[in-house]
Amino acid sequence: MNDATRADWTIVENEFSTRTNLAFEGMATLGSGYLHVRSSLEEALEDDPQNLDFMRMPANVTAEKFRRQKSKWGAYVPGVYGKHPTLNHEIVNVPRFIGVEPEIDGERLSMESNRVSDYRRALRMDVASLERSFVWKTESGAAVRTTFERFASGARKKIVAQRMTMTSDAKATLRLVSGVDADVRTNGYNHFEHIALAIKRDHSIECKATTDLNEDVSIVAKLFVEGGDWRRRESSRRAELEGEFELRPGETFVFEKRSAVSTSRDLDDLSALDALAEIEAATYDELFEEHAAVWKARWEAADVEIDADDEKSQLATRLSIYHLLRAHVEDDPRVAIDAKGYAGDAYWGRFFWDTEVYLLPFYAHVDPKRAKTLVDFRVRALAGAKQNAKQYGYNGARFPWESDPRGLEMCPNWHYADHETHVTADVVFGFQYYAAATGEDDYPATEAAETIVETARYWLERIDYLEGDDKPSILGVMGPDEYKPIVDNNFYTNLIVAYAMQIAARVGEKGGASAEEVKEFERVSRELETLKRADGLHLQCEGFDRLPDPQFDLLWKNRDKPFAAQVSQERIYRTKCLKQADVLMGMFLFPSRYSEEEIRRAYDYYVPLTTHDSSLSAGVHAIVANWLGYEEDAWNFWKRASTIDLDGGAEQGVHIAGAGAVWMIVAYGFAGMRSPIESERPTFRPRFPKNVARVKLPIMFRGASLTFEATAEEAKIENRGDDPVEVAVFDEVRTIKPKQTETFSIKG
Amino acid sequence: MNDATRADWTIVENEFSTRTNLAFEGMATLGSGYLHVRSSLEEALEDDPQNLDFMRMPANVTAEKFRRQKSKWGAYVPGVYGKHPTLNHEIVNVPRFIGVEPEIDGERLSMESNRVSDYRRALRMDVASLERSFVWKTESGAAVRTTFERFASGARKKIVAQRMTMTSDAKATLRLVSGVDADVRTNGYNHFEHIALAIKRDHSIECKATTDLNEDVSIVAKLFVEGGDWRRRESSRRAELEGEFELRPGETFVFEKRSAVSTSRDLDDLSALDALAEIEAATYDELFEEHAAVWKARWEAADVEIDADDEKSQLATRLSIYHLLRAHVEDDPRVAIDAKGYAGDAYWGRFFWDTEVYLLPFYAHVDPKRAKTLVDFRVRALAGAKQNAKQYGYNGARFPWESDPRGLEMCPNWHYADHETHVTADVVFGFQYYAAATGEDDYPATEAAETIVETARYWLERIDYLEGDDKPSILGVMGPDEYKPIVDNNFYTNLIVAYAMQIAARVGEKGGASAEEVKEFERVSRELETLKRADGLHLQCEGFDRLPDPQFDLLWKNRDKPFAAQVSQERIYRTKCLKQADVLMGMFLFPSRYSEEEIRRAYDYYVPLTTHDSSLSAGVHAIVANWLGYEEDAWNFWKRASTIDLDGGAEQGVHIAGAGAVWMIVAYGFAGMRSPIESERPTFRPRFPKNVARVKLPIMFRGASLTFEATAEEAKIENRGDDPVEVAVFDEVRTIKPKQTETFSIKG
Repeated sequence: MNDATRADWTIVENEFSTRTNLAFEGMATLGSGYLHVRSSLEEALEDDPQNLDFMRMPANVTAEKFRRQKSKWGAYVPGVYGKHPTLNHEIVNVPRFIGVEPEIDGERLSMESNRVSDYRRALRMDVASLERSFVWKTESGAAVRTTFERFASGARKKIVAQRMTMTSDAKATLRLVSGVDADVRTNGYNHFEHIALAIKRDHSIECKATTDLNEDVSIVAKLFVEGGDWRRRESSRRAELEGEFELRPGETFVFEKRSAVSTSRDLDDLSALDALAEIEAATYDELFEEHAAVWKARWEAADVEIDADDEKSQLATRLSIYHLLRAHVEDDPRVAIDAKGYAGDAYWGRFFWDTEVYLLPFYAHVDPKRAKTLVDFRVRALAGAKQNAKQYGYNGARFPWESDPRGLEMCPNWHYADHETHVTADVVFGFQYYAAATGEDDYPATEAAETIVETARYWLERIDYLEGDDKPSILGVMGPDEYKPIVDNNFYTNLIVAYAMQIAARVGEKGGASAEEVKEFERVSRELETLKRADGLHLQCEGFDRLPDPQFDLLWKNRDKPFAAQVSQERIYRTKCLKQADVLMGMFLFPSRYSEEEIRRAYDYYVPLTTHDSSLSAGVHAIVANWLGYEEDAWNFWKRASTIDLDGGAEQGVHIAGAGAVWMIVAYGFAGMRSPIESERPTFRPRFPKNVARVKLPIMFRGASLTFEATAEEAKIENRGDDPVEVAVFDEVRTIKPKQTETFSIKG
Repeated sequence: MNDATRADWTIVENEFSTRTNLAFEGMATLGSGYLHVRSSLEEALEDDPQNLDFMRMPANVTAEKFRRQKSKWGAYVPGVYGKHPTLNHEIVNVPRFIGVEPEIDGERLSMESNRVSDYRRALRMDVASLERSFVWKTESGAAVRTTFERFASGARKKIVAQRMTMTSDAKATLRLVSGVDADVRTNGYNHFEHIALAIKRDHSIECKATTDLNEDVSIVAKLFVEGGDWRRRESSRRAELEGEFELRPGETFVFEKRSAVSTSRDLDDLSALDALAEIEAATYDELFEEHAAVWKARWEAADVEIDADDEKSQLATRLSIYHLLRAHVEDDPRVAIDAKGYAGDAYWGRFFWDTEVYLLPFYAHVDPKRAKTLVDFRVRALAGAKQNAKQYGYNGARFPWESDPRGLEMCPNWHYADHETHVTADVVFGFQYYAAATGEDDYPATEAAETIVETARYWLERIDYLEGDDKPSILGVMGPDEYKPIVDNNFYTNLIVAYAMQIAARVGEKGGASAEEVKEFERVSRELETLKRADGLHLQCEGFDRLPDPQFDLLWKNRDKPFAAQVSQERIYRTKCLKQADVLMGMFLFPSRYSEEEIRRAYDYYVPLTTHDSSLSAGVHAIVANWLGYEEDAWNFWKRASTIDLDGGAEQGVHIAGAGAVWMIVAYGFAGMRSPIESERPTFRPRFPKNVARVKLPIMFRGASLTFEATAEEAKIENRGDDPVEVAVFDEVRTIKPKQTETFSIKG
């Protein structure tokens, strides 16, 4: 890989600032699927305590103001949750094990000091590692070239390895403090009811922290360094070793730390101690090599190339895919992907509808095994969904708006929890998407059948009939557009519920439904309609078009900030303003049901009303704009959707659903892939805004492995598999032989 | 007063039970307006700690499950608030000063023990005092006849006096512990940041507790007893004296305790110490006498007689009036009456719309000075209301759903705070009601004018125009019926806002409005309409009549419990079920605007849909049912409305607005008084359910002092004032000379 290419794989920061540090930490989060660590500095910052107790209250995360911190330490093991007094169960920030505190001649290392120069911090996405280097001119007069490296092993998922080097131009005394710190908080709350710490003679520190949900998190951190004069530093919540070393001019001092994490809920028996012991013989470079090999294979199956006339598109796309590859494992269906991609605890480690609608497509078309974990997660959560339904007074299964690993509703805000019912149908959509995309067509009628039927039973009780109406309605819901909180016959909800009921009618018998029930599923699926005006406009909900204008000109004073941050919620609720456009969202999922004219009519009507206050909004709008040939909109929405984390949005974690949306914009938008829900044959209708010259991406489609590449003039499809594949580009259908590439010319 | 009459003035409990104790404590709360004390036992109960820390979360109080306690200590000074981390500011339960812990021969007094017989506890409403008596057969073999008495002085509002007597039939050793306990909580929260305690040689205990809003509460409690052997018992939050005494057979041992409370927000300079010192020379009986004289005068101006064929009507009516007389003072417009009548902290000491609509009429017609305090309270709170409006992005003034003394919104639940906007118009209705009822017709155009104009400015920005509509709408509101959370053109809201705008147009110029604004107020008042169907049914809101049936038969399994406790909120929100009927509420306030047929149509339509889950519901329904001659409904609603606290509903405090409603049922319902808003001449149209034979009540009306008495056959009106008064009974108009009584015969 030459340097020019490397640039597209590496996100570099050349200046340290406490203003941007939080965002970098989140954006550069490392992880193995099993374990995730924010890329905080090894050394603590001045005046930036990480053990403050405060009470985070239920609020709308989008509009929430977070405490200003210079840094936010965070390390998460998916599935390890704690009990929060106001927020329900939340993922736990486990004890910090990456800390290393250097001190030279009595002076603490500080990135905030002007004694640090040549600073560089970088996330290398190709090999999923973090690097930092700088020169530290100490008060005592030495210039110490320092590097830090770190990776969370992709090969050994419980291990994080770190290396620090220091090369001083003068003799100096280095003191290093490093260990495990359990005095951390999650959203200002201490979840550890019991902490056991031990320092061993081999320079390893052991920590077992038991959460308030009785989960054990065991951490072993071992320090590797030659020589030194050692002391123990122990308190009730922290255990560290302090070593003193002589830096000699021109000689490179090397310090390594390896940490292993295990928990009481692990599927394997590998304790943290065993995991670490197993690799003690290997060098840092050897460990890194096996780690890099894993990532190389991942990228081969997933990398997306995009030639655009800006500097960010390629990097931003890779960053999205990096996090998608990092955040999820294929071997643990007890967890899904939390809304912050395990790069922060702002969303409490919860699973949303994003799972099915924004994340599943990437995995289904890139790594079907990981996609299977996601759909299996929902099937496993059926018991929780049934409990939710019961809680609300219904039979059947009701999936939670904010799910914990058990599938129980955790959302502390009733308006979302009670009304954003579409998630229950989104889950069924997900089953069907998985089946259609991977060719595992039996999935809905076998493994998922009972779950599908239970959701349909819930809907049978949840539908209503308005007086004087003989067709079913769904009343009192919030669509994906959360700015209309309790509405009737929401376009998206009715559409997706009718679809889910259609699937339920199809698999009902296999899922234990009676013939009578199946007939009811079928009838509701047929009769449940969305609203369409005589002039062809599809309505977001009953009465939507009579609502007053949102007065953006008057009220939305600062367009760089969400509309919701500038007006009261009650005003938002009673005007036409949208967070995201539900009609377009529905049309995006089922485009073949609507004429281009209908889609255009909807786009032209709703987009001027849409605030895109949701990070999920721009992605789908980019795709629909691109379909309609609204090049400028498509490009602007693409930039907005793709750069959210790259440009500083990852302070509290990454927008992992947005990362899924980035992949979808390329696949569904630029490459024009038709949804497997609507087409069994891989079909592409590439179309670009003028700023994009070429895209190339691997796509799995019903078992076929393709590489799709297109410019404005031609599309090339490589069949990487062993069987011939029939594909289409626009209306041209061809069969591609194994290992062959077909080129389609595109008419302008 | 003979015994038969006494029975109607005294609420007696003959058996102590920890199941009912909480309700008795609340129901029998004593108070002076300045200071209120729940009628907990003097001695603590076993296993019933009052210093537990827990986090009460924002919830719907109606549906909230409170912690099971045997007892709930509570003493409140209106205006003394603390900061709660989840609930905003709340009234503070001040340190406990009524405690007395007797122990005989080493055995603690316990009402739960079978050693106690002849138990009697009584609230004497005529003299606002609490009595308890019983015989305690001690383990050591003595039979000790014991009495406790207590009153919160009506004459000296900072003082509570207590007396205990013991007469033993055998020699015994009595140990008494008594003092001040600041180790108390409000809703599980400690509001005291600093506590200073001192025990003085004269057997007085001083306590100064500083709240987290920096308010000082000073308490001095002094013990009066002859002889004894004394010890101090002190801790950081509690100071007590322990005295030992010999009980001699047949001799009566007397112990007295007097406590005085003052705070840093008092309007006078009288410290607790001074207050107590001032009365040290008086005997308990002397103090009681001056206290009883105050209450005698109060009752003369307020007592309502009702002859009904049940045992409870008279007692329940007196209990309501007792609390109305207790809960409010005429000399401090910085506070109003909190929703639990200062008999509990369940509603955090907040002021609601009840103030104007349920409480004001009683005071306006019984004690106009106290009514003035209530309206003045809102005028004083204008600055807070303006701040609220600004917070929501509006000009003008927006009164809070849950007000603190500053007039700031304290409601932690956004759906009520954001949407129950009608309170801002209710406040203006209150100003006008006060003016019309008392004859202080200038009030709206003078003292209240600016406040009225500021609310009208808010409404000008809060109204909307639906597309295709040239008349104003009010969108996205919750009416008094909280079971339709965010609706358009709510009947009650539109009605009361149009009325408030009419008043604003009238006084606008005086309140600083421009001519242009006044024109706008007038126009909106004229154009803002309520919805009426072609068939004459007034609609609660847009689309109400199309909603599905609430399926009470299927879902409301236990009719003794609120519907809301048995179904999910989202289901309530999307069906026709009502908490209370907004259309009837509006018609109750402005009955002359509707034909009897319209009112009947509304009653017949809405009442079968109404759950009356709100304690405010039955009162207004009783009145409207009575007007319509629905005797059975009127009687049943009367029983329901009047007995709520008498029958065990006062655990967390009394339903003070319900107490106001009880008075209104008698005045507006049975006596048929026309609202001063609609009639300047005192006019009565008495009508009774067959279970009621007679009512008699004093009524102030535009300066006239009347006593109204009616049976089914005749009505008598006494003019107690010094000027002739023109009155009407049905259509018969007569002028009554001073000190004369006129009798009107009523046609059957």
